[in-house]
Amino acid sequence: MPPVLSKILDVKQFMLKSTKRKVISGAVIAVILYLLKIRLTKSKTENMKVKRDEKKGKGNVDRMFLKRILKLLKIVIPRLNSPEILDLVLLTASLVARTFLSIYVANVNGQIVRAIIEQNLNMFLQRILKLGVVAIPASFVNSFLDYLNKSLAIRFRKRLTQHFHDIYLNDMIFYQLSNLDSRVANPDQRLTADIEKWANSLSQIYSNFSKPVLDIILFSRKLAELVGYQGPMYVILYYLISGFLLRFLSPPFGKLTAIEQRLEGDYRACHSDLVYHSEEIAFYRGHAWEKTRITNSFNNLIGHTGQIILKRLYMGVFDSMLVKYGAVMVGYAVVGLPVFGSRRVEYLKSVNNDPSAITRDYVRNSSLLINLAKAIGRLVVSYKEIQQLAGYTTLVAELDEVLKDLINGKYMRTMLQSNENQPGYFAQKQSLVSMNRGQIVETENTIKFEEVPIISPNNDILAQKMTFEIQPNMNCIVTGPNGCGKSSLFRILGGLWPISSGKLYRPHIDKLFYIPQRPYLPAGTLRDQIIYPHTKLQMLRKKVSDDDLTELLRLVHLDYLVVREGGYDKCNDWNDVLSGGEKQRIAMARLFYHKPVFAILDECTSAVSMDVEATLYQTAKMLGITLFTVSHRPSLFKHHDYMIQFDGEQGWNFKKIEHSSE
Amino acid sequence: MPPVLSKILDVKQFMLKSTKRKVISGAVIAVILYLLKIRLTKSKTENMKVKRDEKKGKGNVDRMFLKRILKLLKIVIPRLNSPEILDLVLLTASLVARTFLSIYVANVNGQIVRAIIEQNLNMFLQRILKLGVVAIPASFVNSFLDYLNKSLAIRFRKRLTQHFHDIYLNDMIFYQLSNLDSRVANPDQRLTADIEKWANSLSQIYSNFSKPVLDIILFSRKLAELVGYQGPMYVILYYLISGFLLRFLSPPFGKLTAIEQRLEGDYRACHSDLVYHSEEIAFYRGHAWEKTRITNSFNNLIGHTGQIILKRLYMGVFDSMLVKYGAVMVGYAVVGLPVFGSRRVEYLKSVNNDPSAITRDYVRNSSLLINLAKAIGRLVVSYKEIQQLAGYTTLVAELDEVLKDLINGKYMRTMLQSNENQPGYFAQKQSLVSMNRGQIVETENTIKFEEVPIISPNNDILAQKMTFEIQPNMNCIVTGPNGCGKSSLFRILGGLWPISSGKLYRPHIDKLFYIPQRPYLPAGTLRDQIIYPHTKLQMLRKKVSDDDLTELLRLVHLDYLVVREGGYDKCNDWNDVLSGGEKQRIAMARLFYHKPVFAILDECTSAVSMDVEATLYQTAKMLGITLFTVSHRPSLFKHHDYMIQFDGEQGWNFKKIEHSSE
Repeated sequence: MPPVLSKILDVKQFMLKSTKRKVISGAVIAVILYLLKIRLTKSKTENMKVKRDEKKGKGNVDRMFLKRILKLLKIVIPRLNSPEILDLVLLTASLVARTFLSIYVANVNGQIVRAIIEQNLNMFLQRILKLGVVAIPASFVNSFLDYLNKSLAIRFRKRLTQHFHDIYLNDMIFYQLSNLDSRVANPDQRLTADIEKWANSLSQIYSNFSKPVLDIILFSRKLAELVGYQGPMYVILYYLISGFLLRFLSPPFGKLTAIEQRLEGDYRACHSDLVYHSEEIAFYRGHAWEKTRITNSFNNLIGHTGQIILKRLYMGVFDSMLVKYGAVMVGYAVVGLPVFGSRRVEYLKSVNNDPSAITRDYVRNSSLLINLAKAIGRLVVSYKEIQQLAGYTTLVAELDEVLKDLINGKYMRTMLQSNENQPGYFAQKQSLVSMNRGQIVETENTIKFEEVPIISPNNDILAQKMTFEIQPNMNCIVTGPNGCGKSSLFRILGGLWPISSGKLYRPHIDKLFYIPQRPYLPAGTLRDQIIYPHTKLQMLRKKVSDDDLTELLRLVHLDYLVVREGGYDKCNDWNDVLSGGEKQRIAMARLFYHKPVFAILDECTSAVSMDVEATLYQTAKMLGITLFTVSHRPSLFKHHDYMIQFDGEQGWNFKKIEHSSE
Repeated sequence: MPPVLSKILDVKQFMLKSTKRKVISGAVIAVILYLLKIRLTKSKTENMKVKRDEKKGKGNVDRMFLKRILKLLKIVIPRLNSPEILDLVLLTASLVARTFLSIYVANVNGQIVRAIIEQNLNMFLQRILKLGVVAIPASFVNSFLDYLNKSLAIRFRKRLTQHFHDIYLNDMIFYQLSNLDSRVANPDQRLTADIEKWANSLSQIYSNFSKPVLDIILFSRKLAELVGYQGPMYVILYYLISGFLLRFLSPPFGKLTAIEQRLEGDYRACHSDLVYHSEEIAFYRGHAWEKTRITNSFNNLIGHTGQIILKRLYMGVFDSMLVKYGAVMVGYAVVGLPVFGSRRVEYLKSVNNDPSAITRDYVRNSSLLINLAKAIGRLVVSYKEIQQLAGYTTLVAELDEVLKDLINGKYMRTMLQSNENQPGYFAQKQSLVSMNRGQIVETENTIKFEEVPIISPNNDILAQKMTFEIQPNMNCIVTGPNGCGKSSLFRILGGLWPISSGKLYRPHIDKLFYIPQRPYLPAGTLRDQIIYPHTKLQMLRKKVSDDDLTELLRLVHLDYLVVREGGYDKCNDWNDVLSGGEKQRIAMARLFYHKPVFAILDECTSAVSMDVEATLYQTAKMLGITLFTVSHRPSLFKHHDYMIQFDGEQGWNFKKIEHSSE
């Protein structure tokens, strides 16, 4: 048969069989997915037992996952003309190109071997050259695929991070997420590591799932074309049957591993207990007792692990026989089909009984077969990756949902409620609570509480409804035992905590300035320490120069810092470099820079000597700042005119301080 | 040539060439190791920059590592007839067996293909059967190798853990390691996870390093035998040259990744800072400032990552071309050698110019070649594993060294010394200090301090040299401000802290019993809570029954616990189940069970109501226990006759309490 004719026939045959082949490969993929589904359901129940694993990033692939992933996809691919879409198109094109290149390389491989068998040096060198030429686009496509995956991951991470930054770093949301809502324990982890893992996982999934599916279809087709549809069918059937068989034979390794992890956890807990309680145990001379306990725990663990590896030994034999050698044998049966199968006569005629042509076909077919087997293996692996993506999706989507609740002024807390009937037992309660049921009214220069109770986000009443009014120049000191609600009063005034009822009158938030007990020193220059939260630009707009800053530092006796630390533009880890007193005085310089109408000083001079403290208070009053001080120091009373006293039992008291004439 | 003769000739040829081949394979391995060495030195300097990586388990493979690993090996393989040796012998045998099986399988593969080409169904089925038969031992050897590796890991872990348990859980060593020495920050981590990793790493290294070396030698030889020594030489030379080339072309990815990690760390630090300081930032309304900072940090990270992946893109093209396609081309050149090489005529004569024989040889040669290439790849990987082992070895050996210092009464601490010239700066000092420079004398029933100062392990003097004497029935109360040395006095008396000078007279440690402020409830039964640190056996030997325990519980008003918790043999998480007061009363029951001569009560009744407290003290005295109490409660004074008063400034005072007649 002339080659041109054979090619035409080939195409015709291909057209005829195409439908049949489509049906076969479609059915095969359906069966594989069904198998995976069984696997999934099984591992789901296993997961229930091993909750720790679930949290580590294994999620359920269910309707909820689909809903969440679609919502997140809309964020990372906002429009159809986003660059992400271009990346995805290029990725798809590269994936298809790679598969076709693989098939082409398999062809060339067959031809090279034929040249060896035929001892045709010329053809051998030509084909090697062909391989060298095809290596250039193939290498590029391989590397480009990798690049596109990573690039997509970066794009996804960037989009999602920006999305979250815009919500999280807006107004008070970051504070509320950490302090009012109890659903997200570690937002920093979610915003950094978890988003990164999600983005990587998502960008990988596309190629890792679509590629094996594409490969299975294409390689099955090509193989069916060459050796008949029985070829790929046998291979896939073999994998399905051996998969069923192995699952049937396999001991419950999931359960066994869960037990092993628990025993390992118990053993580690013994050791960390010992470290934690080392002093008590040393006093009791309890080392012998503890040694017995730890040794028992260790022996339990080792004994169990020993059993597992024995089980893995015999399972490994089956696994290796079925998956490794059995598959090779089936493979040979398939590549032997043209020569030994039912279409034997037809095939041998087509190659003119030429051994080198048979060899070429053999090499090409086995190359396709290996690729098909690899694709089936990858499809199984990629399903685990989808489960992993589901885990990360839960983490990220949950953050999104909580942030949206907070924007809408709602938060949820786990509250411990003591149970009256069973002392020592607490019931946990979670419910979505609305914030700000009270009212805030903005005034010119007055602070006024009207029947505002001090209630913590946990719903503990710290102080009964408070009513008082502070005008500029009414310096006020707040006292009371620890935990009585002093700082909480300011959290409500500063807008950090919601007002549960009553009316709060206060000037615009810029006119209030708060100096906390624990001085906050942002990562930045020396200048930043003084002007925070202003930027240098804002400072210059305010017509303040570095010399003015030195003047402020002089007021708090810190002007030596500029020289010691090497100028205003020097960055440093200020928490390490400055002493406790220096930190608190920097915070006072910050107050003098901002010159607010009201200053809330929350035990902010505890590490400053008495005389310097007095100067600081004098200066503040001189600058026209009205003080709202939290302190126990009686020496501070003289700087104030009014006093709010908490009694620690929800009671409070607002009174004028009578100064004895000095 | 008749096959028998050819075989004899073959052996003769083999003998002749054997020396030559040995020299070649030896030289080749030397060059590879040299290459790896260069790689190692390079990554060593990189490691210096990325200290965090080094800690995570990358160590230097140097003389120190050899010394340490030999010392540890002596612990895990104590004798030449240890079961570990048997495992190692079996492992070696299995490794060799696997390689020979691989070569045999390669042969059978060749024969199967030949059968296909020759269209010899009979031979085809025979060879397939042969493959099926060889699959049984091959599967077993594969699985057995895996089993032996894991079994060895468990043995190593067990030996080493027992070794450490014997030292660590002996007397006070566990306390001293956590509290006196500052070299090992988390002993529980070292004793559990790090030992496990070390054992796994060590057991893997043997097969992962020896197998590729063995494979390279054997496959090179076999291949040299079949295609001439140029065959393996070309392959190895090609890998060496492309390795050099790739290193030459490669951007400094180690450095780039280190920078990426640093940027990622910076970005995460921004986020965790924000969470940590969320309240202060919320009060300052610093969110805009923080957003700028976090966004900058994120953009730096993303920008850098983008650059890295671009560099990886072009490097990936070279890599793929050289290592993937280039290697395949060289491979074809090698398997083409018999037909196109210099020995062409000789070879073709030997196979009678039979295409199917050529094909068989081709398939066998390419199978050997692929195995050779894989072995070279594994050798490179296994070197990284040795580096990892070195990292774990450092962690484990360090623990061993510190424990040995502690046994010899020496400890090392990092001490902060304030620098007089530069306020705010501290110098760190580490030096090996000897413990117990003072003297301990065991008495019958007397406690006597003779010029013993209270000095903390940090060398802080808490109280000047103390001298006082306590006889039985001289109940003594100890008071003073926080941190003045009250508990430290008992740490010295109990032998937890070393005595730096003077003489301490005290009865045998069994006659002293300590009840700490934080009650220690061991993980165990309800009975264990009372008799700790006795075991049930010791209790029965002491002729104490469970009913006697109930009597003791009645004394502390806890007899209801036996019913509530379900009997004495019930295990429970006692820290969760018992209330604060119940915990402290359990501790008192423990005291009554042990009935020591002296009892040290370190604020151990703070959560017990006043009236119950009084009964407890009365009971203790009734049982003939002399009390040594730490407390602030004036209500306890009446139970005591003497008082030690610390003033918090190194001063102290020992006096008789004058009781007003009641």
